[in-house]
Amino acid sequence: MVAFEYPLNEKNRSYLRFEFLFAQLKMSISFEHVNDSTIFFKALLELLELAERSDIRHELVKDLRLLSEQMKNWLNHDGVDHKKETDLISEIEGLIQDVLRLSKKLRFFKDNRFLTSLKQRFFIPGGTCNFDLPQFHFWLASDLEKRQNDAQSWFSHFASLEKALTFFLTIKRSQAINTKQIAKNGFYQAEVEKCGFIVVKVDKNQAVYPVISGHKQRYSIRFMSAESEKNTSDSIEFQQICC
Amino acid sequence: MVAFEYPLNEKNRSYLRFEFLFAQLKMSISFEHVNDSTIFFKALLELLELAERSDIRHELVKDLRLLSEQMKNWLNHDGVDHKKETDLISEIEGLIQDVLRLSKKLRFFKDNRFLTSLKQRFFIPGGTCNFDLPQFHFWLASDLEKRQNDAQSWFSHFASLEKALTFFLTIKRSQAINTKQIAKNGFYQAEVEKCGFIVVKVDKNQAVYPVISGHKQRYSIRFMSAESEKNTSDSIEFQQICC
Repeated sequence: MVAFEYPLNEKNRSYLRFEFLFAQLKMSISFEHVNDSTIFFKALLELLELAERSDIRHELVKDLRLLSEQMKNWLNHDGVDHKKETDLISEIEGLIQDVLRLSKKLRFFKDNRFLTSLKQRFFIPGGTCNFDLPQFHFWLASDLEKRQNDAQSWFSHFASLEKALTFFLTIKRSQAINTKQIAKNGFYQAEVEKCGFIVVKVDKNQAVYPVISGHKQRYSIRFMSAESEKNTSDSIEFQQICC
Repeated sequence: MVAFEYPLNEKNRSYLRFEFLFAQLKMSISFEHVNDSTIFFKALLELLELAERSDIRHELVKDLRLLSEQMKNWLNHDGVDHKKETDLISEIEGLIQDVLRLSKKLRFFKDNRFLTSLKQRFFIPGGTCNFDLPQFHFWLASDLEKRQNDAQSWFSHFASLEKALTFFLTIKRSQAINTKQIAKNGFYQAEVEKCGFIVVKVDKNQAVYPVISGHKQRYSIRFMSAESEKNTSDSIEFQQICC
């Protein structure tokens, strides 16, 4: 099965984009493989760019507060594990406090000359040759330990956001509603309620991928043949997961 | 020692940029490591972007013809290994023919819908999430063998350019003039003749990197302290290699 996700509003688009970049960052931060440093800086600088444009912190704090309220309500229901719920609620409160402190931390990046000069060149095709960025070239030649320490220190400014976002998306995915659906003639549409993003899981052997469009109340899928890149007219079975 | 290169004209700037991207491509084409596919597509799409903008083929053919002429002249000198020289000359003639055939080959990329859709998203910060590019996400989930075959087939369109460029730069580097120099107060300038690019080699322990500027007749270096990112006033020993 291959899973395809699709956000149904701007906020969730932003959440999934940050999640994707955090995953790249964590997958490369050890610099064990020769290509890791390029991926690490690509992800870090893209995160900085996105963080300047969107107010993900503000949105996430609101969502975490809502989640905390929901959990407090559940405490009144029978059969709820009180200890587990109150632990979760205090974990959420801690995450909220950490994210609120983030604004100050991101100011660090604006004053960092090394990262600022990299950011100017990194989105230019072929723009990171050693003659474009001699300071970066020197840094790449420095000891692994120094590079790992620097990377950890840069990542630390994002750590609370990454932790809170991962926590929130894990809860959302665990509360998701999972149903089997069929797209007749490769097409499917549905109304949805209280759904931030859709996950569509398809068997790889069907050799199709979904082109999804939609907004918070309604969305549709056109399945495309992976070989011809054209609409398929087959009936496609898939799992629809509303998160 | 850390080596820093600096091109003294647009043509060599283009050569070194292509060389840098070809190196990334070859380092990631096996898809052995989890980050390799991102690097591979980044390099491939950047190459396509640069190939559209600059006429590297035209410049390289001119340079290879000049090299071939030089070698034919050397044949008249005593002490020249005739067999070796004539072999080199026919190798160059072969490379020229291959590069001349390249224009037709690059047309392939314009008609490739998969790569065209990737190219539109790849230079947008965080623009390659699975919801941005479901067809790419599907491709990433396909068998390693298929991915390797696709990658080799895409690279094959650039192979003759890569081979000719590597050959040319190897000859240029082998003919280079290597001298020891000292930058007093961290500053150095020199006049140069028939030099396409400069290589500056510095002992890593001096903890400096060169900021080089210049053009075909004159260039200068300011050495910067890697820690403070400010001009150093120390005397810096370095190797200057004119290629």
